[in-house]
Amino acid sequence: MSSSTLLSRRDLAFLLHDWLDVGRLTERPRYAEHSRETFDAVLDLAAQVAAERFAPHNRAADATEPSFDGQRVRTLPQVKAALEVFAGTGLLAATMDESVGGMQLPHAVAAACFAWFQAANVATAAYPFLTLGNANLLLAHGSAEQIDTWVRPMVEGRFFGTMCLSEPQAGSSLADITTRAEPQDDGTYRLVGTKMWISGGEHDLAENIVHLVLARIPGGPPGVKGISLFIVPKVLLGAGGALGPRNDVVLVGLNHKLGYRGTTNTLLNFGEGVHRPYGRPGAVGYLVGEPHQGLAQMFHMMNEARIGVGAAATALGYTGYLKSVAYARQRPQGRPAADKDPTAPQVPIVAHADVRRMLLAQKSYVEGALALILYCGRLLDEEKTAPAEADRGRAHLLLDLLTPIAKSWPSQWCLAANDLAIQVHGGYGYTRDYDVEQHWRDNRLNPIHEGTHGIQALDLLGRKVTMRDGAGLELLLETIRATVTRAWKAEGEAAELAGRLGAAVDRIAVVTRRLHGAGDPELALANASVYLEAVGHVVIAWMWLEQLLAVEALGSPDGPDADFLAGKRQAARYFFRYELPRTGPQFDLLDSLDRTTLDTRESWF
Amino acid sequence: MSSSTLLSRRDLAFLLHDWLDVGRLTERPRYAEHSRETFDAVLDLAAQVAAERFAPHNRAADATEPSFDGQRVRTLPQVKAALEVFAGTGLLAATMDESVGGMQLPHAVAAACFAWFQAANVATAAYPFLTLGNANLLLAHGSAEQIDTWVRPMVEGRFFGTMCLSEPQAGSSLADITTRAEPQDDGTYRLVGTKMWISGGEHDLAENIVHLVLARIPGGPPGVKGISLFIVPKVLLGAGGALGPRNDVVLVGLNHKLGYRGTTNTLLNFGEGVHRPYGRPGAVGYLVGEPHQGLAQMFHMMNEARIGVGAAATALGYTGYLKSVAYARQRPQGRPAADKDPTAPQVPIVAHADVRRMLLAQKSYVEGALALILYCGRLLDEEKTAPAEADRGRAHLLLDLLTPIAKSWPSQWCLAANDLAIQVHGGYGYTRDYDVEQHWRDNRLNPIHEGTHGIQALDLLGRKVTMRDGAGLELLLETIRATVTRAWKAEGEAAELAGRLGAAVDRIAVVTRRLHGAGDPELALANASVYLEAVGHVVIAWMWLEQLLAVEALGSPDGPDADFLAGKRQAARYFFRYELPRTGPQFDLLDSLDRTTLDTRESWF
Repeated sequence: MSSSTLLSRRDLAFLLHDWLDVGRLTERPRYAEHSRETFDAVLDLAAQVAAERFAPHNRAADATEPSFDGQRVRTLPQVKAALEVFAGTGLLAATMDESVGGMQLPHAVAAACFAWFQAANVATAAYPFLTLGNANLLLAHGSAEQIDTWVRPMVEGRFFGTMCLSEPQAGSSLADITTRAEPQDDGTYRLVGTKMWISGGEHDLAENIVHLVLARIPGGPPGVKGISLFIVPKVLLGAGGALGPRNDVVLVGLNHKLGYRGTTNTLLNFGEGVHRPYGRPGAVGYLVGEPHQGLAQMFHMMNEARIGVGAAATALGYTGYLKSVAYARQRPQGRPAADKDPTAPQVPIVAHADVRRMLLAQKSYVEGALALILYCGRLLDEEKTAPAEADRGRAHLLLDLLTPIAKSWPSQWCLAANDLAIQVHGGYGYTRDYDVEQHWRDNRLNPIHEGTHGIQALDLLGRKVTMRDGAGLELLLETIRATVTRAWKAEGEAAELAGRLGAAVDRIAVVTRRLHGAGDPELALANASVYLEAVGHVVIAWMWLEQLLAVEALGSPDGPDADFLAGKRQAARYFFRYELPRTGPQFDLLDSLDRTTLDTRESWF
Repeated sequence: MSSSTLLSRRDLAFLLHDWLDVGRLTERPRYAEHSRETFDAVLDLAAQVAAERFAPHNRAADATEPSFDGQRVRTLPQVKAALEVFAGTGLLAATMDESVGGMQLPHAVAAACFAWFQAANVATAAYPFLTLGNANLLLAHGSAEQIDTWVRPMVEGRFFGTMCLSEPQAGSSLADITTRAEPQDDGTYRLVGTKMWISGGEHDLAENIVHLVLARIPGGPPGVKGISLFIVPKVLLGAGGALGPRNDVVLVGLNHKLGYRGTTNTLLNFGEGVHRPYGRPGAVGYLVGEPHQGLAQMFHMMNEARIGVGAAATALGYTGYLKSVAYARQRPQGRPAADKDPTAPQVPIVAHADVRRMLLAQKSYVEGALALILYCGRLLDEEKTAPAEADRGRAHLLLDLLTPIAKSWPSQWCLAANDLAIQVHGGYGYTRDYDVEQHWRDNRLNPIHEGTHGIQALDLLGRKVTMRDGAGLELLLETIRATVTRAWKAEGEAAELAGRLGAAVDRIAVVTRRLHGAGDPELALANASVYLEAVGHVVIAWMWLEQLLAVEALGSPDGPDADFLAGKRQAARYFFRYELPRTGPQFDLLDSLDRTTLDTRESWF
């Protein structure tokens, strides 16, 4: 399989080099060993492995989902084979320090590499992504010994990781988790409880599974303030890291899902006494950091995971877009509106205005989303390596504010892109002979997991926008306005679009003040989702104006690049003409402090 | 299974009696044998059979889709059992004349009856719906002998019917079908060709399958003007209607779909010589009506089928809505925004504003769509039975204009409702343990079949709006304005909403003139889909204002009906506050005669 229907290599080069100028990062000590050539080589490697090892079993892993016979979980053999090749690339440690075997790649480049795997096979890619989140959390908060014991085998691909947050009665509401962790004399803990929705919670793909588990140490404060974080391996380790006895972590069952079927999703029991490590019931766990810091630690991972979800949504949207372009070019059907001679040959459907509308919409969504995801990666690089502390602080603040948008906007609109990809394929798109229906099903998870759409909306409007007296939002608006100013100076088309973006930014400022100025938190947050969606559209319009400026900076080359750049211009126009105006009624609604949902009684449904 | 999560019996009573006043139809000769009581009895029967016989195997028929071993198609036994019970109700002939065994029910009542089956199990319901479309077409265009031979056994449930339009190279473009029908000396025809996407094209559910096939008689004009319609049974009939030899119609294979899996969807070969009826190859066919009238005849069925698709989409949206309400009432999660005490008990999620937003949105979509579907049924009753010819003509004209909207609007927005139903269920909604993911998959077909969304848009803006010098659109706008005027006079909330609806109607008039006044058909139709969606939203706003007037006419009762009526009011408010404003940017775009899609070159993608 070719990588050309997964992502666009040209678009990645444009975004990373022509726009984000990641080559300049090599001037910094952390990336000094790198060059544009090493960045491009690793991108090519990712594209190749994704196309050759991940894409071919994407459909098969969906059709033959993992099974559990009460003893063992079985997954398609191609999954394990692909993950072994992935481990061999070293990409799991793409951004990690050389000291732990990492490549020290910039996050922007690593995110682009990972997007290839998400586009090729999001369900198989989920295993290393979960493992990566786990490993990064331990690198940030674990002890040196914990890093050595657990992160090293994860980087080598021998151990996989999970995140165990949710419980059957506590999904969005982490304050309500009840899993207990009893301290033991030897400094370890014994955990008892049930965790739900645990992706990768059981499988036959690795020697061991390292669960990171949120639980309560008895006597701690109620709610989220009393949550601690524990390492709970599936198999305990003996001397020298040798695999030891089975820990008391037991698979109750697999969830059978609409999509992402290749990723096991599990209900796990901890400490039910099925296994009795060292002769006693209870799942052995090791505290990470200090007690009662679990939520803060987990948020470190969750912010990364949320952008990862946005990246997965983007990758699924992107491959669906490319496949529908390929289909539209080769499928003959009908004739131009002005030519109804039935004896004339049929034209490819890409010739029809409505099909071009559906392709342009997809292009504007998926390339806009990819720009945002890579921009967030670039912010992470700034946060970690900018020479000036003030720049690092600004990057951190901006990234924090953008995270709920980078999670939610692609989850909503790249799902919409997949819907359009099906529509372009017509009846064929509704069959399982084409990929697009699976992308649509897979993508439907993304507005749900790692914090639902509604939770992201509360995070943005209820927390991020108000934190530090609104400094985060102020910084976002200021940063967008800087683009607007540059576009004004560039004149031409960018200047025209700049006016519209500037007006939308002003509306964000006014509406936010109005919502929080009302002095009624319930009212302020009643339409948080509408706020999230409106701000998201403005942010993507900003990403398009940024891209348009980068296009204009490249001048007017001949050859195939002329088409590429013209396509970028047209997608920017499309977004400003068809999409940004959607925010008008949304801001109007917010501005009216609408109470419709608050005033609705349960008995009225 | 209870019918209470399929549709709302109270809502149907409200729409049919309190709003559409179907009881008054019994004053007309055709319905003189009926009364409100007989209408209600048949609605109750439909609800009961749907809940007891159709709903229980909805999930199983999805999980175990029909299979073909090269010889026989096998379907789940419950499908056949359910269809036998359905045949026993006589509902297939609900609207037909008594002379052919029909009930002579009004179409509005029949549509409400059928919606129960579509909500319970859209895939099993598809078999009688295809048969009904087939039978109605033969009743309209077949000879007395054809009706006796083919319609009678369909009404009895012994024969099922199909519609064979599409071919692999001709889906949306019927001008390009190539199936040939050679006339024979005995007045029959022999057909040779391949038909694609034929739902119910093969199965083990009936004694015989009556295909209605579009084909070309050699020597006829090219394009759609040379298409004729034929009856091509799977099994030929001998004397007295006894089953005779196998006709030369052969199943090539089943399509494997995203949803609607319980309905077989087939690729059929006609006249390949596998069977040789009466010793010769070629599928025996019987011409319906005159040669070259096939498309006009088929359009009779297609208009009915298009409203039926809208009804199916509505029913799927409706049941998803009711299931998400039930879930939201019983699922505890989190606490009110103003109360963060983690030791307080969790509240049901229906208490959260964002969940109420998702429920109100669904309610406004599915009840708005149902109102439109039943209104179309009521128009059909007017077209057929209004005493004055002028009224019949007006009903025909209005229905013709509303058909693409009644097909497309529910297909788009009740699919969006199913998306929200999943979201309300959170992670559980993403599993196959709950129904809503299947409804979403099933519903995704509706914007594709019976003319895609884009085809409906061209039908509305390119044909319906311009026909008879724009008389159809004029009539629609006049009819909506009459509601606006009534609402003005009613004062109160209805008067306030009336002003907004009136303004939207004015925009339709202006924008339509502008598009067709530009003198460039390609430009006029470039954004036909945007036009379809904007007009659709205005039509549904009109349906909500109509419902609000009906609510106000009922006064202020006490008891549970007070909640029902308050819910209607709130959904009307929701639609006017959150939904109707979406049309503003759409009308702006249309008004600008935007050329973005036309100016996009294929090489830019």
